[in-house]
Amino acid sequence: MLIQKRRGAYAVNKREPVIGIVGLGYVGLADALAFSLHGFRVVGVDISKERIEAIKAGYVEGFPREAILKSLEGSLELSTSYDSLRDAKVVFIAVNTPTNPNGSQDLSQIISALNGLAEVWRDNLHDFRVIVLKSTVLPGTTRGLAKHVLNKLSTVSEHVGFVHCPEFLRSDKPLEDVLKPFRVVIGGIDERSSSIVAEIFKELYRRIGYDAPIFIVSPEEAEMIKYASNVFLALKTVYGNLVGLVCREIENCDALKVMDIVGLDPRIGKSHIMPGMPYGGPCLVKDTSAFGKFVLERTRIDFVNRISELNELFIDKMIDSLEMALDDLRGKRVAVLGIVFKIGSSDVKDSPAISLSEKLLAKGAYVYIDDINRKALEYAQIILKDVRIINNYEELKSMDAVLITVGYKEYEQALQHVNDDALIFDVTGTLKDNKVLKFYSSAKKT
Amino acid sequence: MLIQKRRGAYAVNKREPVIGIVGLGYVGLADALAFSLHGFRVVGVDISKERIEAIKAGYVEGFPREAILKSLEGSLELSTSYDSLRDAKVVFIAVNTPTNPNGSQDLSQIISALNGLAEVWRDNLHDFRVIVLKSTVLPGTTRGLAKHVLNKLSTVSEHVGFVHCPEFLRSDKPLEDVLKPFRVVIGGIDERSSSIVAEIFKELYRRIGYDAPIFIVSPEEAEMIKYASNVFLALKTVYGNLVGLVCREIENCDALKVMDIVGLDPRIGKSHIMPGMPYGGPCLVKDTSAFGKFVLERTRIDFVNRISELNELFIDKMIDSLEMALDDLRGKRVAVLGIVFKIGSSDVKDSPAISLSEKLLAKGAYVYIDDINRKALEYAQIILKDVRIINNYEELKSMDAVLITVGYKEYEQALQHVNDDALIFDVTGTLKDNKVLKFYSSAKKT
Repeated sequence: MLIQKRRGAYAVNKREPVIGIVGLGYVGLADALAFSLHGFRVVGVDISKERIEAIKAGYVEGFPREAILKSLEGSLELSTSYDSLRDAKVVFIAVNTPTNPNGSQDLSQIISALNGLAEVWRDNLHDFRVIVLKSTVLPGTTRGLAKHVLNKLSTVSEHVGFVHCPEFLRSDKPLEDVLKPFRVVIGGIDERSSSIVAEIFKELYRRIGYDAPIFIVSPEEAEMIKYASNVFLALKTVYGNLVGLVCREIENCDALKVMDIVGLDPRIGKSHIMPGMPYGGPCLVKDTSAFGKFVLERTRIDFVNRISELNELFIDKMIDSLEMALDDLRGKRVAVLGIVFKIGSSDVKDSPAISLSEKLLAKGAYVYIDDINRKALEYAQIILKDVRIINNYEELKSMDAVLITVGYKEYEQALQHVNDDALIFDVTGTLKDNKVLKFYSSAKKT
Repeated sequence: MLIQKRRGAYAVNKREPVIGIVGLGYVGLADALAFSLHGFRVVGVDISKERIEAIKAGYVEGFPREAILKSLEGSLELSTSYDSLRDAKVVFIAVNTPTNPNGSQDLSQIISALNGLAEVWRDNLHDFRVIVLKSTVLPGTTRGLAKHVLNKLSTVSEHVGFVHCPEFLRSDKPLEDVLKPFRVVIGGIDERSSSIVAEIFKELYRRIGYDAPIFIVSPEEAEMIKYASNVFLALKTVYGNLVGLVCREIENCDALKVMDIVGLDPRIGKSHIMPGMPYGGPCLVKDTSAFGKFVLERTRIDFVNRISELNELFIDKMIDSLEMALDDLRGKRVAVLGIVFKIGSSDVKDSPAISLSEKLLAKGAYVYIDDINRKALEYAQIILKDVRIINNYEELKSMDAVLITVGYKEYEQALQHVNDDALIFDVTGTLKDNKVLKFYSSAKKT
């Protein structure tokens, strides 16, 4: 039985199995909080001291401070050392899988986490443990990684199971999505591994009081489910934007009106179909690119990789339109309003507005960037050395063109400073100002 | 007020405006029934006497006989002559738009209907009438057709309005989809035209007691909404099948399990995503092909046309797998179980099973076809001269391979006749028999 403390946090119950979590990014931290808030003993490990300090202080983007502090007060323990995972019954690996310069997946963070864990467990396992890989990896990878770690643990390998359990979190609502997932997918290398992890999730959702659909599949199926889901969302985005480009070329046709009605069909749905900026962010870009290569290699079908190409092409089409309207971009002053990949995130690494700004700079334009999220803006300036940050919207007066790339409602006001003969392109289609041209809409009227 | 007759049909009320419908295929007939069953006076015109006779007898595939007979007893009048449309206030044009050999849209049936109507109206219009185009046409076409008909009606052209109102019917449930549409889209060339048609639909749904979302847009937006919707469904089908092909190439991966879970995400949805036969039927094939050409011409982007190519490629992949398994198809006996493009339809014209059979024949195989719908089977034999029809499932004994291309539950039984060493490929993934290989599933197990 759990002992409820006065302020609502669970007290540590020594009979609860320990859940380890390696990598406390938004995926790992969401899991750490979800489990610890519901009475599981959780040890979270991250090699970054800074990250651990930020969590201890309760300040992590995307997470309610109260939830973090409540967890820390209860059954969540943080550490920078794998030693803390000695007694963990189940260890989630939630580190990054970035892309190598050649487009392949960089598994070094996973391998380093697995090696760290093997080191601690090597001479020390008398009961069965399960490693749960949360990181997104291409089909076939989990089984390979399992072999690697079982080799390292050769003397005790019969005590170790391995599961791939893909995460399906939105980066701006990670905790919410762990607490109420559309589905939990468990792909164990054997039945024993799967069923131990399934039991832990069942217990979590029993405590939450949510009837989560839990599926046991093969590791390859689990890996494929993750890619097939994310790449479909990328495809949907690209399709909506493509219809947007077609609408630009015909008379009297507003792509936002079109796709708003198309999205009413429940077989289609509104999500990801509205024309706007290309997709960006920490998942869709790298997953679509990795899966595109994978599909091409395995089937010789050149289709998924076209999604990434098209996504990049939309940026070129924006540049083309600007160039056409302003004659030449050299020396022109262009404001890019919005730099994050979506509202609520400060992630700019794979934000399409970054790529747009880079291409504008390459054309010789003076580029001025803004974002309501000031932290994102600072990150962006580190990447885009030659841009200038807008400090006051009065600076918009001197712009030749203004591009709205994130639909912050604050921009409605800001645009009042823009000169009447400046070009204003709203790529998001969300602003109501009359001076604004919707990018995804016909320029021609009958 | 409407006068209800004893057997439930509405009596003809002379004060109701007359609605004309040209072309009584499943689109036109569905509209004719929906309006007449709810008390509107409807005149349906079709140049085919056979079609008129079939409707009069109440036997039309996809429509409940009772609904047809009740309409005819009430306010539905049928005719083969445009003269009957003299007094129609609103005329729906619901004729076919087939594809020309060069891939362009054949508008001749629409033009002929418009000319017929213009002939009758030319010297005869003293009040405002609206022509409503239901047929699927490429963006820009409606306005061109309106100009054509207004020229013909030059002396009375101020009395004629024009609207594009795309249909969104499933060919196996047309009446249901008119009575409860997800949306009604009205794209008039002017406000007056749109508002007259909107009022008629509002009155229809008031009488039905259904709160239909009605949208007034430009003709170009209406045209685009139709294509963007249908082509997205084609894209979704192709994507599901592509994931299926990828799963074939990796270990322990059942694409049906994968996509079943992927479809749980409400941003994706189960419809059209399950791997199976390529898309077919009277809409998706021609619409995707026409829109693919259109998009390429207008934007120089080679993407939508790739959907049609991929769709055809799945057939080639099936042939390849068979060829690999049987060494060579020449002289081999192959059964194709299911020839319609979907259960509930007898349409075979653009059915992928036809294309599959043609390619098998071209490889020198003996092809045996079956379908639970015997009418479809007869149509198929007219197209595929060299196939043989299976008359008794005992004939399956002698087959080298059996392909299940439509998921009729009857096939579960039929397969018991197949020889143990014959190859059975289920492309639909619906059969449970152990002898059956799912086409979209890994052949490799660890």
